[in-house]
Amino acid sequence: MPGMPPTQPNEAATHRVLPVETARRLLRRDAYPNLVRLLRKLHGSECAEILAHLTLSEQSRVLERIPDIELATTIFTYLDEDTRRRLIPQLSTARLVAIVRVLPPDDATDLLRTVSPERLQEMLEQLPETFAAELNKLLSYHPRTAGGLMTTDYFALEDTCTVHEALERLRRASQVETVFYVYVVDMEHRLVGVVSLRQLVMADPETTLRTLIGNEVVSIGVDEDQERIAQLITQYDFLALPVVDRSGRLVGIVTVDDIIDVISDEVTEDIQKFGGMEALDAPYFHIGFLQMVKKRAGWLTALFLGEMLTATAMSYFEGEIARAVVLALFVPLIISSGGNSGSQAATLIIRAMALGEVRLRDWWRVVRRELGAGVVLGTILGTIALVRILVWQAISKPYGAHYLLIAFTVASSLMGVVLFGTITGSMLPFVFRRLGLDPASASAPFVATLVDVTGLVIYFTVASVLLKGALL
Amino acid sequence: MPGMPPTQPNEAATHRVLPVETARRLLRRDAYPNLVRLLRKLHGSECAEILAHLTLSEQSRVLERIPDIELATTIFTYLDEDTRRRLIPQLSTARLVAIVRVLPPDDATDLLRTVSPERLQEMLEQLPETFAAELNKLLSYHPRTAGGLMTTDYFALEDTCTVHEALERLRRASQVETVFYVYVVDMEHRLVGVVSLRQLVMADPETTLRTLIGNEVVSIGVDEDQERIAQLITQYDFLALPVVDRSGRLVGIVTVDDIIDVISDEVTEDIQKFGGMEALDAPYFHIGFLQMVKKRAGWLTALFLGEMLTATAMSYFEGEIARAVVLALFVPLIISSGGNSGSQAATLIIRAMALGEVRLRDWWRVVRRELGAGVVLGTILGTIALVRILVWQAISKPYGAHYLLIAFTVASSLMGVVLFGTITGSMLPFVFRRLGLDPASASAPFVATLVDVTGLVIYFTVASVLLKGALL
Repeated sequence: MPGMPPTQPNEAATHRVLPVETARRLLRRDAYPNLVRLLRKLHGSECAEILAHLTLSEQSRVLERIPDIELATTIFTYLDEDTRRRLIPQLSTARLVAIVRVLPPDDATDLLRTVSPERLQEMLEQLPETFAAELNKLLSYHPRTAGGLMTTDYFALEDTCTVHEALERLRRASQVETVFYVYVVDMEHRLVGVVSLRQLVMADPETTLRTLIGNEVVSIGVDEDQERIAQLITQYDFLALPVVDRSGRLVGIVTVDDIIDVISDEVTEDIQKFGGMEALDAPYFHIGFLQMVKKRAGWLTALFLGEMLTATAMSYFEGEIARAVVLALFVPLIISSGGNSGSQAATLIIRAMALGEVRLRDWWRVVRRELGAGVVLGTILGTIALVRILVWQAISKPYGAHYLLIAFTVASSLMGVVLFGTITGSMLPFVFRRLGLDPASASAPFVATLVDVTGLVIYFTVASVLLKGALL
Repeated sequence: MPGMPPTQPNEAATHRVLPVETARRLLRRDAYPNLVRLLRKLHGSECAEILAHLTLSEQSRVLERIPDIELATTIFTYLDEDTRRRLIPQLSTARLVAIVRVLPPDDATDLLRTVSPERLQEMLEQLPETFAAELNKLLSYHPRTAGGLMTTDYFALEDTCTVHEALERLRRASQVETVFYVYVVDMEHRLVGVVSLRQLVMADPETTLRTLIGNEVVSIGVDEDQERIAQLITQYDFLALPVVDRSGRLVGIVTVDDIIDVISDEVTEDIQKFGGMEALDAPYFHIGFLQMVKKRAGWLTALFLGEMLTATAMSYFEGEIARAVVLALFVPLIISSGGNSGSQAATLIIRAMALGEVRLRDWWRVVRRELGAGVVLGTILGTIALVRILVWQAISKPYGAHYLLIAFTVASSLMGVVLFGTITGSMLPFVFRRLGLDPASASAPFVATLVDVTGLVIYFTVASVLLKGALL
């Protein structure tokens, strides 16, 4: 790292100034060898950060022209998905093929998924036949399954192999992404065990791998969903998880760095759905304005159409409002309390479901718990409202002669609405999951909309019972 | 793995039936050696799952009585935080000391943080002096910093060491948690480089480590926040990150498995705050009922007190409502639209901030973008409302002679409220971060409450201007 005092590696790592202007100057002078020298000194993720400051045409010139294809490929892998997507059409097919040849198979597959069908065909024809066949196989899996995430760059040996042989072969293996584990297979390439590189280094060189493996191995089927992989890797603290086909044959591995990205992406999706919109699938500043508005307008309009029912509900009680305008004053307070308590309950359950803490069959335990919570929370808010109305009345008498009846109407409606909101909010994620939908779509705004109409009905029904003969 | 056909390891791994009843039976008969044999066949996380089905006293008997202390310790590390916290007071100090001796230093520190000060003193006295000193040092760091998360179980060698020597020493090292990397230090134990175990296995045995290291190393300061570590590990795809003190000396490492837990915990906290409550800090079914209600009641009450301002705001317009009851019908629709659009905008910005996509200095870019989004979204909802009122009027004439004025009042109020909600929702996370608060607290309910009062004022102000002389 140039120009940094060696005594402060922590400072250096966290507050590094990137040579963006130098890179741009070299690019303007077509000084590609110098540019390579500059970039080689940096980590791939830092090169990618420099590129993020350049225009699209500058970016594509860097990747297309620098003579060091390994470097170009490393930079490419550290670019964010969105930049990659925009760059690929700018690059020549020859350069893309060169990049694909250097990429690990899982990343190569991700790249190939984004090119047009014609170009894909053209590229596969220019690749060595066996590699093309391997990529074709990987392309056949759904991108969000183990098959779609895995790499075929793993290191597997037969169980009859000795530790000495294994270390020798490892020394000769060149391009394997993860050799933290050696996968042990039988003669039919069925996975029978896993040996860590550390076990290998520490073992007696003459023993066979079979003696090192335990009598169990955790693996995942090729069609399993990425969320399940994330759960397994988190639970077992693995660095990589072997992927097997239906007959138990080892076909690839999923590594922890890809899973961290999956966890982060899934969470972003959940949070955005929870905020009441479609998942953006791109960073905030990278997504186009119109596309972003479209993703937000859809749900907002749907919620709005649902919320229109409140106007319909209110019109049924127009007579009551005309006779006792004071009732209208508490409408926002009551419906928002239902919405807030519902949104709390929904958040809790959605997150607990995502973490696997709460399952579908737990719904009845949740109902009992939330029933209790709803009663307590409703009583708290109801009591506050009661006190508030009595205090205001004592000060400035805004509620007339029937203030006590009004206070009790508002307080008991609040109890009902909060209880209803809590139960609705906690049950909606269960209903969504049961219907095969994502529980995260049971968003705060969705719950609020559902609770608002019912809240109005509860309020005005309580009012017409309690205030009959007095105000109504 | 007993009783599973070896051809289906994928099925076996994902749908395993745990021998909970067998374990309970052995426990009832005090057959601890048999219990050890049963549990040894399973992964630590599976043993922990079995314990989750037992009562607290059964759990503590398993951990206290089984003769195999290594197994007891492994099971202990896989228990969730909450179970560990409840179990620790049940275990004897002798057993806890035995467990601490086997645990890696970072986990040992976590355990010691949860015992009483007196017991901590007692335990430290029973441990070997140098280990106790090491643990005391680790206890001095804040648990959410690099120092608090790191382990001192790393493998470091001086840069003059040869590859052959390094492999020999590695073979003799017994209890090191992560030997995926060998950390290379100078004579003063300052970190100068990192060599992966793979590089080591592949290198010429006679070269020194100095020739294998690059001219840079990424590390993190001992006081850095855990969120920063998560960002670095995600960005650089590291399996472990070295931690250095102010003078660049290597003091520990943070491993990727601990960071996955950090990422997950931080997200849960953000999501729960975003749902309008305090972070629970425990799984849904594990937290006590009263404690959960307390964490929910706090925010709910605060929001309720804020929302009471709507009743005050409405009372200012009581005269208008009395003269034109029709105005009251649209109150829920208008305020909820402001809340929904605000909650969308807040979600987007909060998540983008957590991912580092949007920074404090980007606020003006966000304002410009959200101004556009607010106008478009407001126009969409306003138009829908206009059409809806006109259609209803054509069908059943509920809005009287001034229906056109009412339609325009509602439509233009919606535009104003949605625009205001969008700007408020997107700016609130910036305000919170600027004030040093967590942006995630700018929750959907919080934004909605803020927008509700203003929404009412906008609506009734527009109404009094447009309807003056007609209805008002």
